[in-house]
Amino acid sequence: MAAITVDVNCDLGESFGAYRMGMDAEIMPYITSANIACGFHAGDPAVMRATVRLAMRHGVGIGAHPGLQDLAGFGRRAMRIDAKEAYELTLYQIGALGAFVKSEGGAMRHVKPHGALYNMAAADAAIAEGIAEAVYRIDPELMLFGLAGSELIRAAERLGLRAANEAFADRRYEADGSLTPRHLAVAVIHDAGEACAQAVGMARGGGVVTRQGTVLAVQADTICIHGDTPGALEYATALRAALESAGIGIALAGSDE
Amino acid sequence: MAAITVDVNCDLGESFGAYRMGMDAEIMPYITSANIACGFHAGDPAVMRATVRLAMRHGVGIGAHPGLQDLAGFGRRAMRIDAKEAYELTLYQIGALGAFVKSEGGAMRHVKPHGALYNMAAADAAIAEGIAEAVYRIDPELMLFGLAGSELIRAAERLGLRAANEAFADRRYEADGSLTPRHLAVAVIHDAGEACAQAVGMARGGGVVTRQGTVLAVQADTICIHGDTPGALEYATALRAALESAGIGIALAGSDE
Amino acid sequence: MAAITVDVNCDLGESFGAYRMGMDAEIMPYITSANIACGFHAGDPAVMRATVRLAMRHGVGIGAHPGLQDLAGFGRRAMRIDAKEAYELTLYQIGALGAFVKSEGGAMRHVKPHGALYNMAAADAAIAEGIAEAVYRIDPELMLFGLAGSELIRAAERLGLRAANEAFADRRYEADGSLTPRHLAVAVIHDAGEACAQAVGMARGGGVVTRQGTVLAVQADTICIHGDTPGALEYATALRAALESAGIGIALAGSDE
Amino acid sequence: MAAITVDVNCDLGESFGAYRMGMDAEIMPYITSANIACGFHAGDPAVMRATVRLAMRHGVGIGAHPGLQDLAGFGRRAMRIDAKEAYELTLYQIGALGAFVKSEGGAMRHVKPHGALYNMAAADAAIAEGIAEAVYRIDPELMLFGLAGSELIRAAERLGLRAANEAFADRRYEADGSLTPRHLAVAVIHDAGEACAQAVGMARGGGVVTRQGTVLAVQADTICIHGDTPGALEYATALRAALESAGIGIALAGSDE
Repeated sequence: MAAITVDVNCDLGESFGAYRMGMDAEIMPYITSANIACGFHAGDPAVMRATVRLAMRHGVGIGAHPGLQDLAGFGRRAMRIDAKEAYELTLYQIGALGAFVKSEGGAMRHVKPHGALYNMAAADAAIAEGIAEAVYRIDPELMLFGLAGSELIRAAERLGLRAANEAFADRRYEADGSLTPRHLAVAVIHDAGEACAQAVGMARGGGVVTRQGTVLAVQADTICIHGDTPGALEYATALRAALESAGIGIALAGSDE
Repeated sequence: MAAITVDVNCDLGESFGAYRMGMDAEIMPYITSANIACGFHAGDPAVMRATVRLAMRHGVGIGAHPGLQDLAGFGRRAMRIDAKEAYELTLYQIGALGAFVKSEGGAMRHVKPHGALYNMAAADAAIAEGIAEAVYRIDPELMLFGLAGSELIRAAERLGLRAANEAFADRRYEADGSLTPRHLAVAVIHDAGEACAQAVGMARGGGVVTRQGTVLAVQADTICIHGDTPGALEYATALRAALESAGIGIALAGSDE
Repeated sequence: MAAITVDVNCDLGESFGAYRMGMDAEIMPYITSANIACGFHAGDPAVMRATVRLAMRHGVGIGAHPGLQDLAGFGRRAMRIDAKEAYELTLYQIGALGAFVKSEGGAMRHVKPHGALYNMAAADAAIAEGIAEAVYRIDPELMLFGLAGSELIRAAERLGLRAANEAFADRRYEADGSLTPRHLAVAVIHDAGEACAQAVGMARGGGVVTRQGTVLAVQADTICIHGDTPGALEYATALRAALESAGIGIALAGSDE
Repeated sequence: MAAITVDVNCDLGESFGAYRMGMDAEIMPYITSANIACGFHAGDPAVMRATVRLAMRHGVGIGAHPGLQDLAGFGRRAMRIDAKEAYELTLYQIGALGAFVKSEGGAMRHVKPHGALYNMAAADAAIAEGIAEAVYRIDPELMLFGLAGSELIRAAERLGLRAANEAFADRRYEADGSLTPRHLAVAVIHDAGEACAQAVGMARGGGVVTRQGTVLAVQADTICIHGDTPGALEYATALRAALESAGIGIALAGSDE
């Protein structure tokens, strides 16, 4: 029988000019997919190049991480754009990152939208389609990461793109499959042990216990960790250990690697 | 014997958001190479896409036109950057435009730096090398446009890139090969007939008469015209007619097309 | 009895760097209030200074026209910001414009938010309050322009700021007081005569005939005209003539001037 | 006899959006003048407001810290601008910061250009004049900080502005009065004791020993410390102690406070 595997991804390359963000070098050993900012919400050409090289040295899968053109808001503020704009800004950013990947002799493997664009793509079929179309047009072999079961996953599948359902080990889920809103105290699972247990449960297909107490099936092809929070490294270490001791392989299913 | 040919290029795709600039659709029939802005000094994803499509419909060669990250100054203000920054910003912008070229089924043929970056690359060997290296790493078949006889041409040739020496039909030359500074009244040749005669002379290898009255050999692989000035279309029409009636073909020598 | 007066305002100073927009010099003679862009959605320091001087030469009331920080979208794309951000970005932009007004020896008279910020402030009481608070803190004598009867007008009045209800002569109204959405063919009144008649009707307090055929009372302290559309000057001329021939004074009521 | 005093200034408010920079709260107790970034090279409306409030709580003199419009380069890359542009960008930024100072009930006391603009203003009389003119037009009572003995100081004095000669305790000087270029190993004085001794010497008017071994008179009205380097707090503490134990008051001479 096939072994169970799960991917572990992290947003990286979010420094900009004189501004440092994240612990990219430290977090790389613990992940299998790096989502690299492309200069719209974060990142700049120098940071993109350095992050691509770093990911290659660690054998981590490289992904473009396109965001809204809102450096002041770090791409976290929803903005009214249409499907055409979503298509175009995604294409632009994939192309820009792709130049660094190609010039360094690497290969891009996936695309994951950032922040508000990610959330908009999860809920809005037209935005999702714009993004998926851009990915498809650049390279139909690229994998698209989106919120598990969301519009973005559906848009990818309609086009024949491989989609990776993203799940969150350290976030609480609602019974309807959405993430518990951050203004609620229980939205974030701060206990590393509990988060790891949720990750193992999701990876095994056992579902997660929602805030309402129900059990929710969440497809977890890839699990997101954060690289810019206190305790990020400890959590990454614990997560990796928990997955491995549960016999779960850490890799991107469906990838050639 | 081989026919004499010369390329005619124009900077295009310089609109941005709600701001319109240039007469891209009108000028396309008169040129053989389009230098398309990439979002740093001008242009945005929607404009880049539209301009790529427009160039393809007219069978015009597509080039990336990277500039300094200075939208407020339209990339015309010299800025102190080093060779590494020149390399990275060139790579980023070529990649971004390349995504639209690829997604529309086209092919990029050349790169020409914009404004202050063009001037810096003409005079500064390190900047020139940074730019040439970026072009080479993306695709060694790309052609690099630079001021005739400048450091950028030399940097391209050192790497084995094909270089196109750019000449200006409507600008006065100094005896040392530089362009007459714009603060001098005679810097720009406003008479279309005189500019066309200079173009024909350069294309034939006959040299140009400098401000000082000497004859200067200027290699003219490609001639630049401007698309955003009054009389641009009339000039473009006259230039094309003058070249053709002198038996000079209008095409990019060394290009596969 | 007091004469009826109405203000005529226009958005100006929307050029940016090498990009020209609008016919500021031509439109100035026809208006009494200039809303000057402040560098976030349009405008730059050079344009702001030039526009302030132009307004002063014409004796036109100077207003700050703050917008969302979205040059690429010209401030027309709604963006999720909170009241604190609205307060801060309004304050910043008023201050920036104020420096040019002060250094030229003029006086700022009003503030009118731009585009998406204007619409958000019309509908969202918290955003409206953030904007009104910023205006009040800078100078409680400033007048705040907002959509007639909207949340922004209410926020101004709660603080004791003078508010100017803005009406649109060339836009169709819905029975509920909102503007007919632009995707409907009748949203814009293209006939200058009809628009002028609507302006005169509103200024006299006679109300407007809505798309549904009802008569709607619209308080019109100031009427907005556009300076960047074909026919803008003809319309401005016609509007001014229509108001004057109806015996309606053109001035900002409540202003000291 | 009058006591000797010297001002201690620091660049603050350099965070931007999600990006944190500097230890503003920690450094405030050790300084008498805060140079607050204004959104061009660093800072944003929220950061500006917070930093103004912080300075007011500590009774620290508030200054605008205008920079080149180059967030990607943190305002450190020289850019070719003319005197008019220098005037306009300075005016804009002073106005923007001024809005926060006024709305919080404070008062602006000085202006100090940032990074490349500071260096350009030190060497280029026209740029210096543009900046000084902007300061003067906003408020002739504002004090202008510039490199001791530089063009900016001269421009301020020509206009009748009060100028504060800035000296660097932790930088080596050349015999001609310029700072030792950073590419030389001895450019920065890393030993806190040596830097403090240089500060005391300058404040007393005893001059500094240059790299060449000569003694150079450096007028030190204000001494710059950095808030974003390791050891910044220790150095700030040591400098303050050294000045006080030498009987040197810490305050801005010529200020009303």
